[in-house]
Amino acid sequence: MTTNEKALILHEEWNGKIETVSKCTVKSREDLAIAYTPGVAEPCKVIAQDKEKAYKYTIKSNMVAVISDGSAVLGLGNIGPYAAMPVMEGKAVLFKEFGNVNAFPICLDTQDTEEIIKTIVNIAPAFGGINLEDISAPRCFEIEERLKELLDIPVFHDDQHGTAIVVLAGIINALKVTGKQKETCKVVVNGAGSAGIAISKLLITYGFKNIIMCDKVGILCKGADGLNWMQEQMMDVTNLEQKQGSLADALKGADIFVGVSAPNIVSKEMVASMNKDSILFAMANPVPEIMPDIAKEAGAKVVGTGRSDFPNQVNNVVAFPGIFKGALEGRATQITEEMKLAAAEAIASLVDEKDLNEDNIMPEAFDPRVAEVVSNAVKSHIVR
Amino acid sequence: MTTNEKALILHEEWNGKIETVSKCTVKSREDLAIAYTPGVAEPCKVIAQDKEKAYKYTIKSNMVAVISDGSAVLGLGNIGPYAAMPVMEGKAVLFKEFGNVNAFPICLDTQDTEEIIKTIVNIAPAFGGINLEDISAPRCFEIEERLKELLDIPVFHDDQHGTAIVVLAGIINALKVTGKQKETCKVVVNGAGSAGIAISKLLITYGFKNIIMCDKVGILCKGADGLNWMQEQMMDVTNLEQKQGSLADALKGADIFVGVSAPNIVSKEMVASMNKDSILFAMANPVPEIMPDIAKEAGAKVVGTGRSDFPNQVNNVVAFPGIFKGALEGRATQITEEMKLAAAEAIASLVDEKDLNEDNIMPEAFDPRVAEVVSNAVKSHIVR
Repeated sequence: MTTNEKALILHEEWNGKIETVSKCTVKSREDLAIAYTPGVAEPCKVIAQDKEKAYKYTIKSNMVAVISDGSAVLGLGNIGPYAAMPVMEGKAVLFKEFGNVNAFPICLDTQDTEEIIKTIVNIAPAFGGINLEDISAPRCFEIEERLKELLDIPVFHDDQHGTAIVVLAGIINALKVTGKQKETCKVVVNGAGSAGIAISKLLITYGFKNIIMCDKVGILCKGADGLNWMQEQMMDVTNLEQKQGSLADALKGADIFVGVSAPNIVSKEMVASMNKDSILFAMANPVPEIMPDIAKEAGAKVVGTGRSDFPNQVNNVVAFPGIFKGALEGRATQITEEMKLAAAEAIASLVDEKDLNEDNIMPEAFDPRVAEVVSNAVKSHIVR
Repeated sequence: MTTNEKALILHEEWNGKIETVSKCTVKSREDLAIAYTPGVAEPCKVIAQDKEKAYKYTIKSNMVAVISDGSAVLGLGNIGPYAAMPVMEGKAVLFKEFGNVNAFPICLDTQDTEEIIKTIVNIAPAFGGINLEDISAPRCFEIEERLKELLDIPVFHDDQHGTAIVVLAGIINALKVTGKQKETCKVVVNGAGSAGIAISKLLITYGFKNIIMCDKVGILCKGADGLNWMQEQMMDVTNLEQKQGSLADALKGADIFVGVSAPNIVSKEMVASMNKDSILFAMANPVPEIMPDIAKEAGAKVVGTGRSDFPNQVNNVVAFPGIFKGALEGRATQITEEMKLAAAEAIASLVDEKDLNEDNIMPEAFDPRVAEVVSNAVKSHIVR
């Protein structure tokens, strides 16, 4: 039986991948009088006096909402809120299993930006954090920015920042392996959606100076037709030399390629045209932009993909559970750039110097240290 | 230590009364590939083709949202969404413990009727049912009615219908004990908020002909000042003789008193003025409209309260878990009047004829048969 066949059968068996479970027993009248009326009025009254006490007496201290509108789900596209649920449930499972963070999946029956924002603000009191998921660009940027202004709990669009953090972690270690310097590397990011933009931004924050973004039409440059507002903003900080041309043109003399785009669009020749000891993150799934063996033959030193059957898997699961764990435990009100950088460094640090090589730049997804180390890194950068 | 003191300490210890727990294990790469990507795409694709399949592959088949805006919480009033959370969490616990129904608490940071409706519609895809809770009247009536029109899942305001169902169950058995007939009984309902109105409506549906509603100003009659739109509607079906006067006037010659109002507002003299073998449900909490022993001294035959330390406790927990269990299992799209009546009859039937007496008209909250019997009654009345 294939994995896909098994997945369908097991999803029917599970009939929902999460359940809600009581942390208190209710077996007697006295139990009932404590967990429910009349005893429950006591914490209610305390919280009514001081809203912050919600963290002491309710699920808010350890409950994340995993929220999607179903507009950009995996590689499936705009499949809507009902079809998006298995993914959001899966994400909730990963939060719990990898970070011991409680999470509840919410799929929204609207794709209107204003309604999404209002709905999330309205349901926020129960939650200690909001993980946005699979919302299409450029709407995802506005939704996240506005929610960060409106809410006093962390809001984090994992497709953007989770991906960016894990890619940066991989790049940090790839630089060590290749001896390249962030200040002088030429980076090409192919794919200018939510992930590509967030990756470019975080790389700049980390200290990369020379990034070129590409998409289907080739190199993105200032004033090009069809750029959305966020892509236009990115033109102020990327492609400062105003290059034009194709992805192949961009890759000539590049040190790092980051693909969040489409299968097989990078050729052997393109890799050969890159600088010596090039670094490729080819994360199109399930078929990467170029297969690792071909990239290596063409001269690449480090190749990462989204797949678990090749070395150097870029997997968000090493980031988001620990990030929210740290943010919740430290009562962060936002996930800041400093916290993202710290998370990336922490993930990179999990590969011991002695084990570090071109085929081992990422920690194992199941490495039991990951969530704790990431959480601590995040916590140590909380400014209140 | 008092119950209230214990409640506060334990609520801090619990730090949230529910948690989300995975139904699938994720211990290996293969597990991950089945519960999350790439395998998860399979149920997504099936649901994208047929929305109904959400019941097969997601939590929707057994997940209720417990939703409040915090506007009318217990006897505490409008304490807002943060302070309302312990109650909604408690309700979620009771759903799970008594009915094996998964439930998640959502408290809304808005008290605007239109925004509440829109927000609930927007988050509905994840849920198989909506339990509204502690929303002030008359807004609760409009919110519930509109949601019933807009959604294809059951919407149930427990303060109204749960209470009404349990009171009706008690009255069914009290009629047996007293030999009174529903068609000829004179009923006085004191308190014209969500519970009082729902009780009056359900009693009429059940076959009572003569109901008078009272509130702080006394008997409610057609055209009186200060009635809200729902109370005005009720004047078409209650107090058909257009009586005026005080609660004391209303009770003269009455057979049944139902109080969802305030402590100690029914005097011994008022009970003495009622018909022989009178039935009283004095449900103000924690101090009832009249204490049971005083009511009995004055001639009452059957007295029920909201308290567990007196006989005949009226407790919604014998209703809502079984009602949603049945509605979810039977895939009901609404909780109809027939289902409510069937639930009340089922609850009443749990007291064996041989055990039935004036101090034993209600089943025990912890009677393990309750949820199943109520659920089956509800399921047998589902019309598709």
